[in-house]
Amino acid sequence: MMKKIIRKFSTLTKDKFPNIKRGNYSVLKDGDIQYFEKILGKNQIITDADEVKSYNSDWLNSVCGYSSIVLKPKTTEEVSVILKYCNDRKLAVCPQGGNTGLVGGSVPVFDEVIISSTSMNKILSFDSLTGVLVCQSGCILESLMNFLKEKGFIMPLDLGAKGSCHIGGNVSTNAGGLRLIKYGSLHNTVLGLQAVLANGDIIDSMNTLKKDNTGYHLKHLFIGSEGTLGFITKVAIQCPPFPNALNLALLSIKSYDDVLWSIRENITNALLKDGYSYKYDISLSLQVFYQIVIDLRKHLKNVADVKTVCGYGHIGDGNLHVNLTSAKFNENILNCIEPYIFERVSEFRGSISAEHGIGFFKNKYIKYSKTENEINIMKSLKSLMDPNGIMNPYKTIWNLRDNLAEGLRKDGFLYCYDISIPLNKFTEAINMMKEFLRNKKEVLSISGFGHIGDGNLHLNVTTAKFDPDLLYFMETKLYPWVSSVKGSISSEHGIGFLKLEFLMYSKTKNEIALMKQLKTVMDRNNILNPLKVLS
Amino acid sequence: MMKKIIRKFSTLTKDKFPNIKRGNYSVLKDGDIQYFEKILGKNQIITDADEVKSYNSDWLNSVCGYSSIVLKPKTTEEVSVILKYCNDRKLAVCPQGGNTGLVGGSVPVFDEVIISSTSMNKILSFDSLTGVLVCQSGCILESLMNFLKEKGFIMPLDLGAKGSCHIGGNVSTNAGGLRLIKYGSLHNTVLGLQAVLANGDIIDSMNTLKKDNTGYHLKHLFIGSEGTLGFITKVAIQCPPFPNALNLALLSIKSYDDVLWSIRENITNALLKDGYSYKYDISLSLQVFYQIVIDLRKHLKNVADVKTVCGYGHIGDGNLHVNLTSAKFNENILNCIEPYIFERVSEFRGSISAEHGIGFFKNKYIKYSKTENEINIMKSLKSLMDPNGIMNPYKTIWNLRDNLAEGLRKDGFLYCYDISIPLNKFTEAINMMKEFLRNKKEVLSISGFGHIGDGNLHLNVTTAKFDPDLLYFMETKLYPWVSSVKGSISSEHGIGFLKLEFLMYSKTKNEIALMKQLKTVMDRNNILNPLKVLS
Repeated sequence: MMKKIIRKFSTLTKDKFPNIKRGNYSVLKDGDIQYFEKILGKNQIITDADEVKSYNSDWLNSVCGYSSIVLKPKTTEEVSVILKYCNDRKLAVCPQGGNTGLVGGSVPVFDEVIISSTSMNKILSFDSLTGVLVCQSGCILESLMNFLKEKGFIMPLDLGAKGSCHIGGNVSTNAGGLRLIKYGSLHNTVLGLQAVLANGDIIDSMNTLKKDNTGYHLKHLFIGSEGTLGFITKVAIQCPPFPNALNLALLSIKSYDDVLWSIRENITNALLKDGYSYKYDISLSLQVFYQIVIDLRKHLKNVADVKTVCGYGHIGDGNLHVNLTSAKFNENILNCIEPYIFERVSEFRGSISAEHGIGFFKNKYIKYSKTENEINIMKSLKSLMDPNGIMNPYKTIWNLRDNLAEGLRKDGFLYCYDISIPLNKFTEAINMMKEFLRNKKEVLSISGFGHIGDGNLHLNVTTAKFDPDLLYFMETKLYPWVSSVKGSISSEHGIGFLKLEFLMYSKTKNEIALMKQLKTVMDRNNILNPLKVLS
Repeated sequence: MMKKIIRKFSTLTKDKFPNIKRGNYSVLKDGDIQYFEKILGKNQIITDADEVKSYNSDWLNSVCGYSSIVLKPKTTEEVSVILKYCNDRKLAVCPQGGNTGLVGGSVPVFDEVIISSTSMNKILSFDSLTGVLVCQSGCILESLMNFLKEKGFIMPLDLGAKGSCHIGGNVSTNAGGLRLIKYGSLHNTVLGLQAVLANGDIIDSMNTLKKDNTGYHLKHLFIGSEGTLGFITKVAIQCPPFPNALNLALLSIKSYDDVLWSIRENITNALLKDGYSYKYDISLSLQVFYQIVIDLRKHLKNVADVKTVCGYGHIGDGNLHVNLTSAKFNENILNCIEPYIFERVSEFRGSISAEHGIGFFKNKYIKYSKTENEINIMKSLKSLMDPNGIMNPYKTIWNLRDNLAEGLRKDGFLYCYDISIPLNKFTEAINMMKEFLRNKKEVLSISGFGHIGDGNLHLNVTTAKFDPDLLYFMETKLYPWVSSVKGSISSEHGIGFLKLEFLMYSKTKNEIALMKQLKTVMDRNNILNPLKVLS
């Protein structure tokens, strides 16, 4: 087990973590800079202290190195020459993409030479038949998305940092994000990659094939190893076609058990055969499930074209689906049903939308489910978050999700944990944390949000200001618990520098031993991203 | 580059390939057998020569070792003790699953100790909420499928050998199969695995999480490394829900260009709004596209309930979709349309089913697209292949596919190649082979079939009997060509023993060097499946 890492208030990582020691690497000399200038040209090197600053520090300002140089190679061959030189000179290096990581993996701990993929931003090919995109590792995710949109394709991953993150960084950290459930992780969608080893050797696994069972599947070694085994220079990635339709729903669900239930598949509604189907998704107390269908039948008895009126639902959660069919869509039927059914739901104190939200269609009926005061609060919230009313519902829902962390940060400081745990442990995680922090008066909120589809919980704690002792107090409690439920202490964001001492809570002794063997064989001088992932 | 491997007619691999040399391993002694008996008990060891035979030879009888012992451990711990012992004793071992491989990877080359996963066949857990199955590596794929069917789930892979292959073997060889396009490769669906290294160390990466970004993604090293880096003992795999519907179509497509076109997405038919939609998918010469719709409109003018009659289609391939809608399904309409439209198609010498096959619905109209002689031939074929008429259409179509290799083998001997190449090279591959074998009178047929979705072509050559010189002649031509189009010489089946000398056509010098480094670090004495994948 690793010695406890001491944390102190400071700007520089070396002062913040005073017992982390710099390895026995060379120190950058003028001759080195001259060599790099010869290889890259002056324009691809940054040595101006002010300019280098932003490459030394992560965007959360949680860690900060003091490197004095940033190299911006344009080609794989340049990366190879640089790494060979650094390896021979025993200069430690820090590979950097868009520098959007959350665990301090993409900035130097000390004075490592920063190799940025910024200038490796060329799209090399796209095959519109197979959807295979080949590009350099420094392409910004959103640029690739925009490029693909015109071709009728999308990237298989999407994440908050898309405007700045590089595809090479995504691959190095096995970035998860929003499309993982549908398209799989990058282990699934990256068909090939090219990486340069510490000694400058180029590993060219630039496969664009969906299937290749020849020899060890080396590309997977580079996916998720956070730049410690090689510098990724090119990527071939399988892009799915642009979806014809995208449905997004904001559900309000009463209990966590119901959340779990909601992820199971819904029964298929087979009523479409009659022609047009009108569906209402309401919540009611069980006693009136039957009543409302009977009432509606009576109400519609004399309306032409109505074929069936029936209901089915979820006894467990009071959610009733009322279904009506007619030969074809008929606005009169709609006008005849809707005010009636929602008024009845309101009388019965139910909800006019159990699962599917209000959206556009139920807009005018919201008064049947919300009081005037509630509607006023909602309106205030809307105007606060979207003063110009420019947000469409799709964006609004995603913004709610995207801004959760930003919102929590308004308390002062946000400690956020990115863990994977079994689905039935989600509430336990939050309760455990609440219990554990019971006596910590400085804690303002404890909450969780995340990816029910893939078991990734973002556990959040807020305080007025950062306290390294509280951080350590929480980590030493949370991670052993995560380990005890066979979870992962880093679902999406990697180990980087900041989770270095906790790796053993997610990997066994033998796994770590094997990782170290692999690291040694692939980077004998340990120059690649030292003090990241493995200590 | 490796020296040419000489091939001779013989039963034993050592005689067939006389210049392949046995490594400097120990020879099994009585004391070893006694030790294994102590660990496993007598019932889990086979030493009877006749019984061991079937474990020494692959099912194609292409390779055959002369091992004198098969060990059948039941637990990971037993595997660990066995491997530690063999490593200390320098006894080479051959891990074996269901022994269904096609490249000689699962049988000993010489006298390796065979470790079979046959007795490691326990299902350990299944979570019906998340679909995660955890089992031992010796579970037979089909047994897992049957187990899951009851729970409403399926395995994410399916392949011809499912009745005998083991899930551990599937994972070790990264088996592809029929569901790869939909669910991804095993790199995507295997969430965790446990493997024992050559020295007996257990690597327990038994994750059941969909996301885990902590440390190197070690499981991927064992997926597809064909038992040369470790013996897989347990697997956790993501199982998809049983699909509500499965549609299978047998398409007859005129040219390979049209095949490529067919894999792009089809336009969505938005005509369902009227209620019920009748669709006919016919092939016609372009001149009468318009005519047939006009005729049909006239014909149906006085039929009640018919709302629209229209057509749209593929100018490029003469495929017309004729669409009719009515408020609801009406058998009279059907009876009024079908004989008429198919008769007209027949008059125009078109096809009554351009894309969707005959299936059940067009059964009675087949005479409009096939002559009596053709129908008679089809009937003979059907009774030949399904004498008792028990096949349902679903099975029939799959059988056509599944029996292609079996059918080709009737020529005498089948040389089949399993390559991945760019989609636009499929026909070139076959033409290249035809050109190359132009003067080889013994060649009876050259054909290809395969996976258009994932770029995997099975290239087949038949002769009356096996000729090792012809085999070598073809390999030395085909593999360099595959390499020149950046394909893979083994899409699904791995390198095993039989493709050993051709690895360099799919992997670069640096990749092979890195593979060797990894092999050395993980299996210092090279006891795990020697002469497989790496020479």
